[in-house]
Amino acid sequence: MTFKEKGLLVVLSGPSGVGKGTVCKALRSRGSSLHYSISVTTRKPREGEIDGVHYFFRTREQFQEMIRNEKLLEWAEYVGNYYGTPIDYVKKTLAEGKDVILEIEVQGALQVKRRFPDGLFIFLAPPSLKELKKRIVGRGTETASLIENRMTVAKSEMELMENYNYVVENDQVEKACDRIEAIVLAEHCRVERLIDKYKNTEGFDKQ
Amino acid sequence: MTFKEKGLLVVLSGPSGVGKGTVCKALRSRGSSLHYSISVTTRKPREGEIDGVHYFFRTREQFQEMIRNEKLLEWAEYVGNYYGTPIDYVKKTLAEGKDVILEIEVQGALQVKRRFPDGLFIFLAPPSLKELKKRIVGRGTETASLIENRMTVAKSEMELMENYNYVVENDQVEKACDRIEAIVLAEHCRVERLIDKYKNTEGFDKQ
Repeated sequence: MTFKEKGLLVVLSGPSGVGKGTVCKALRSRGSSLHYSISVTTRKPREGEIDGVHYFFRTREQFQEMIRNEKLLEWAEYVGNYYGTPIDYVKKTLAEGKDVILEIEVQGALQVKRRFPDGLFIFLAPPSLKELKKRIVGRGTETASLIENRMTVAKSEMELMENYNYVVENDQVEKACDRIEAIVLAEHCRVERLIDKYKNTEGFDKQ
Repeated sequence: MTFKEKGLLVVLSGPSGVGKGTVCKALRSRGSSLHYSISVTTRKPREGEIDGVHYFFRTREQFQEMIRNEKLLEWAEYVGNYYGTPIDYVKKTLAEGKDVILEIEVQGALQVKRRFPDGLFIFLAPPSLKELKKRIVGRGTETASLIENRMTVAKSEMELMENYNYVVENDQVEKACDRIEAIVLAEHCRVERLIDKYKNTEGFDKQ
């Protein structure tokens, strides 16, 4: 019997504004072996965002139908909009032995953890709350009251860090990517994942 | 209070002949941030080996005195020779917040685990037992009966793999080094190690 390693489900999460999207984009441009799941959202596309590439943009009615039909691995309403992860792609890709990365909000990550407790949960953290605020303000897409709202949410999300396996500080995007790639490579070396390959040394040479 | 991360104790072990020494040497020449502990042994120096650089070469009497004085973190008698790790250097370096790597035999690694259960135990595995035998024979330093002895020991050591945290296949030295460096970097991102830094978001900005 040939040893076949299962794909890893990598969940990259963290407070809004911490740079999850930027880090994912950088990972992608490095040509990492991670497979990206595209989220569904009811929020309006930002400039340059393309349906089916950056997100699946859907109406509230369409989104609610996906919830009813259990087509979402997780979903959340966040600052007035729905965000979710289509489940079919994730299951199919993991079954093929490929690693999948999800870039999702903290609420959603905890939902995924209930369904995939063996997933790899990475909390992307800002170097400081001051820096986080600067990034949200700098994005220029939010009003002052939305910014305060996001900061309050961010502080409570930081408290949920202990539900994750790893914390990656996003001080510099490339360094954050190095750490994420190291985590994925290291997890593939965990003894629990590989023990069956070597379990029986008699059979070890016959693979 | 400033958050100070503790040093990691990395234990690289695996069957004799798997290439622990070669991998450690390669890690060192890459300039990794790991600090190397020098072992003590009673075996004769191989060509080019220098006392105090590759090993501390000692007599059996001297070695036994170190055991009596509890100056060894671990020690083992292996194919007629003693091997051990001086404890003082390891403790001092970890206390300074630096990572230490030990390159030791399987018996010794399990002794270290009893004293440092939080250590990072990496099992260096051969691509196959056939390949392992080839490497031991290729070294040209062992007689036929010693080779058979080593192979028997190696097989039983493979069965102890489940006591380790990670398995790194030494198919290519540079790849093995990549994996070990990734494991160390990933472990520094584990939430248990970093949670105190972020625990109290009120204090998080005041560091």
